[in-house]
Amino acid sequence: MSTAERGKGSRSGLRRTLMTSELLDTATKLFAEKGYEATSLLDIANALNISRPALYHYVSKKEDLLAMLVEQVTNGFAEVLAQLKARDDLTPSEKIADVVALIVRQRAEHSDQFRILDRSEPILPEPLAGEHLAAKRKILREFTALVEAGIEAGEFRRVDARTAALSLLGMCNWVAWWFRPGGDVDSLVATVTGLATGMLAAGENAGRGRQDARTIAEIRGLLDRLEG
Amino acid sequence: MSTAERGKGSRSGLRRTLMTSELLDTATKLFAEKGYEATSLLDIANALNISRPALYHYVSKKEDLLAMLVEQVTNGFAEVLAQLKARDDLTPSEKIADVVALIVRQRAEHSDQFRILDRSEPILPEPLAGEHLAAKRKILREFTALVEAGIEAGEFRRVDARTAALSLLGMCNWVAWWFRPGGDVDSLVATVTGLATGMLAAGENAGRGRQDARTIAEIRGLLDRLEG
Repeated sequence: MSTAERGKGSRSGLRRTLMTSELLDTATKLFAEKGYEATSLLDIANALNISRPALYHYVSKKEDLLAMLVEQVTNGFAEVLAQLKARDDLTPSEKIADVVALIVRQRAEHSDQFRILDRSEPILPEPLAGEHLAAKRKILREFTALVEAGIEAGEFRRVDARTAALSLLGMCNWVAWWFRPGGDVDSLVATVTGLATGMLAAGENAGRGRQDARTIAEIRGLLDRLEG
Repeated sequence: MSTAERGKGSRSGLRRTLMTSELLDTATKLFAEKGYEATSLLDIANALNISRPALYHYVSKKEDLLAMLVEQVTNGFAEVLAQLKARDDLTPSEKIADVVALIVRQRAEHSDQFRILDRSEPILPEPLAGEHLAAKRKILREFTALVEAGIEAGEFRRVDARTAALSLLGMCNWVAWWFRPGGDVDSLVATVTGLATGMLAAGENAGRGRQDARTIAEIRGLLDRLEG
């Protein structure tokens, strides 16, 4: 304990939300470097520069960190998606753009969180494994529903909505593997969001149809004048 | 050896190419189930229903399978991309569609190959690890160049080409994790290819521009006839 107690941080000085995020980032970084099994709560306390008792305020065992990861990466996000679906002030395209921006930012800013959770799936204990799977299914269901709503509204091309949702998720999740820390997250988010909406947009042919209709109406007008 | 020798297959009856593909699929399936370390060449020979000496015709040690995987999944594909770049008979959109179709089909039909190689990256020995990394970089470079060529040609929107290439790769690679064996690969390939080209397409406005130009040319032709 004496090693742990040399930590300088005081529990009262830490805000819980920030701490959760910092704790998860620190823990997943250690898991990524040393492996989940080889990392102890003491290692995490040391890396955070707090005492082990202070860490125990947030996690009583290592498994709690996996539960926090599921909450942060899948469960929490499934909730956000469900709330977004209910908003009437946003078009389907805007909703897709918001969702993509949220995921891309999370994967870019906390890439170890997603990577460690992804790699930890085989060792997730129950009931956590079940919750994680249920949340992943909910995310796919909500995402697919968003794509379907966009098709229904005529904003998106008629594509297989489930395949489109999984393609979008793949594009977003992959960011956790390629984006380098310190890169320009805002540019990244803007680019991928643009690609995502472009991927689905009713696009050129629909554009041609509308444009043709307008041009034809104008020519009819001119012909009417010639006849008149 | 006696267990291995009960295999019914004869070496002469196996065509090398098909065998390589079947061998890799069988080996990666076992790696996925039991783990790479826990799988022996004997296990693989048994699963293929051939003798261990027959298997030794193709692989002399387990590491050879990792080399075959790198050849199949990354090295070989980097070659294909380089060849495709040189073809003058295809537009950038057609090239992107071809590349996406190739990757998606490989990820769907041999998902364990990609997944095992991806998960084996930390244990790849040198010089294999270096070759694999070089091939991955070449793939990204060629893919990025294809996107740039499309932007240059006015077919694609002006996006960050590297981010677009990585987004496309993410979308394609993710298939290895979600596509279920026995699913409709042709439909999958068609849908994802459409999403990929849509993602980049110069889109509605450029489409309007081209369409307008054609319509205007037609109207000019009609006016010329009226005047004539």
